[in-house]
Amino acid sequence: MIEINNKVDYIFYTNNTPNTYKIKLMFHELEKKHAITFESRIIDITKKENYSDEFIKINPNKKVPAIIDQTGEKPFIVFESVSILIYLAQKYSSIFLPDFKTNPLENSEVITWAIWQAANLGPAFGQYFHFSFFSPTVQEYSLHRFNNEAQRILRLLDDRLSVSPYIGGKEYSIADIASAGWLLYLNFAPIYNANKDRFPNLFKWLDLINQRDAVKQVNEAIKERFGAFNTSPLRSLFTNDPDLINAKAPIGIENVVLKYD
Amino acid sequence: MIEINNKVDYIFYTNNTPNTYKIKLMFHELEKKHAITFESRIIDITKKENYSDEFIKINPNKKVPAIIDQTGEKPFIVFESVSILIYLAQKYSSIFLPDFKTNPLENSEVITWAIWQAANLGPAFGQYFHFSFFSPTVQEYSLHRFNNEAQRILRLLDDRLSVSPYIGGKEYSIADIASAGWLLYLNFAPIYNANKDRFPNLFKWLDLINQRDAVKQVNEAIKERFGAFNTSPLRSLFTNDPDLINAKAPIGIENVVLKYD
Repeated sequence: MIEINNKVDYIFYTNNTPNTYKIKLMFHELEKKHAITFESRIIDITKKENYSDEFIKINPNKKVPAIIDQTGEKPFIVFESVSILIYLAQKYSSIFLPDFKTNPLENSEVITWAIWQAANLGPAFGQYFHFSFFSPTVQEYSLHRFNNEAQRILRLLDDRLSVSPYIGGKEYSIADIASAGWLLYLNFAPIYNANKDRFPNLFKWLDLINQRDAVKQVNEAIKERFGAFNTSPLRSLFTNDPDLINAKAPIGIENVVLKYD
Repeated sequence: MIEINNKVDYIFYTNNTPNTYKIKLMFHELEKKHAITFESRIIDITKKENYSDEFIKINPNKKVPAIIDQTGEKPFIVFESVSILIYLAQKYSSIFLPDFKTNPLENSEVITWAIWQAANLGPAFGQYFHFSFFSPTVQEYSLHRFNNEAQRILRLLDDRLSVSPYIGGKEYSIADIASAGWLLYLNFAPIYNANKDRFPNLFKWLDLINQRDAVKQVNEAIKERFGAFNTSPLRSLFTNDPDLINAKAPIGIENVVLKYD
C-alpha cells in the first residue's frame, strides 16, 4: 500500500541521481514561487528497492524519480522526469514552459530541447557512466562508443549556448532543468573531460544558472554526495564477484580518444 | 539554403527508420482529419547526408525526423520525434493528446508514456539494433545488456496493455504512435524474439492499431523496405574493413539469454 501523507502537496520518490535532481530543482523553484510542499522518500537502488511491489505500483518502469500529486481529488502519480517537469510546468501557470495557446513556437522549442535531453543526453550519459564506472569488466568498444556520444552531446550543447542564453531559448525553462540534472556535476569535477577551455559556452551557462537559489540548493546536495562517491555498491548490481565489485573503475577517460574538439 | 516549397503545409525530413515512422503515422492521420499536405525529403544516413551543412541548420542533433511547418507567418522547424508529435497534437485541437486545461490527468498520462518511449524504448531498441546488426565485431556484454533491456521494455508494455487498451490510456494517442514507430516491425518478423505466446497483450494491441488507415499505409512502407534489409550500408558507418562490412550480423538472437519470460 502507498502510504499517504496528506500534510504535503507532493510525495517525491528520489535517490540523489541525475534524473531526480531535475525534480528537486523544480520543487525548490515551486516552493519559493508557489509555496508548494513535498516529502522526499529515498528509494535505494543498491538495495533494489525500486523493484519492490510497492514501488512498481508507483512506477512500472522501476526507476526514480516519480511523484504523487496529492493536491487533487485523489492521489495522482507521474513518472519519467521530463514528463513530471511538463506536468508541473503546465499546472503552475506555464512556469518554465511557455503556454502553447499563446506562444506555440516558444512552447515547442522548450519541449524539443527537454525531450532532446530525455532521448539523447540522458541515455548517452547513463551508458557513459555504466561503462566508465559500473561495468564489472572493461568493454573498450562500448566505452568508446558512449564516451564519443557524450562528447557529441556536449559539443552540440556548447554550440547551442553560443547562440541562445538558455537551452530552450531566451528564458530559463524546463529544458535547462532537464539538462542541469546531469550537468551540475561539472561544478565539482571535470567528468566527461569537460572544462571551460573545451566548452566555454556551456560553462558560461553553468555560471548563469548557478546563481539561482534552487540550483544552489541542489549543488549543495550534489557536493555532499560527491565526496562519498563509491562505485562498488552500484557495480554489485552487475556481478557477484567481490574482486570485480571492489576493483578500480574499469578504465580511465585518459584511454579514450576524444572527438569533437 | 533551405529550399521552400510553399505548395505544402509541411516539409518532412525522413528516411524509413523507426523514429520517422512515428511522424508518417501522424501525418497520414492529419491528412485524413485535417486535410494537411506534406512533402517527404529523404535524408540518406548511409551517405551521411544528415551531417550536411544544410541539414544541420534544420536539426543540430543531425538526426531524422525533422519537420518545417510552413503554415505560419514564417517557416518553423521542429525536431525530436516525440516533440514533433506533441507540437502537431497541440496544434490540431488536441488530436491524440487530451488538452491539459480540461483533462490534466489524461494529458499527463499520454505525455508520460510518449516520453517513456523516447527515453527508454527508443534508446534500448536503438542499441539493440546496433549491437545485433551493425557493430563490426561481436560485443557480447553489450549485446546481452541491450537485448535484456529490450526484453524488459517489451514485458513492461505487455503488462501495461493487460490493463489499458492503448499505451497512453483509453484512447489511441501519441503514446501509441511513438511506440508503434518501433513495434510495427513485429507485423513482419519476430525481432526482439517477440511473439504472441510471449507477449499476447502487445500483439492484441498491434492487431487493434493495424486496423487504422494511417497504420496500414505505414505498414506498406515497412513491408517494402523489409524485403531489402541489408546490414552492410549501415555497418560501413562504423568500419572501413570490407570483410567486416559484408559479414553476417555479429550474433544471432539464439545466443542471447532471454530474461523476462
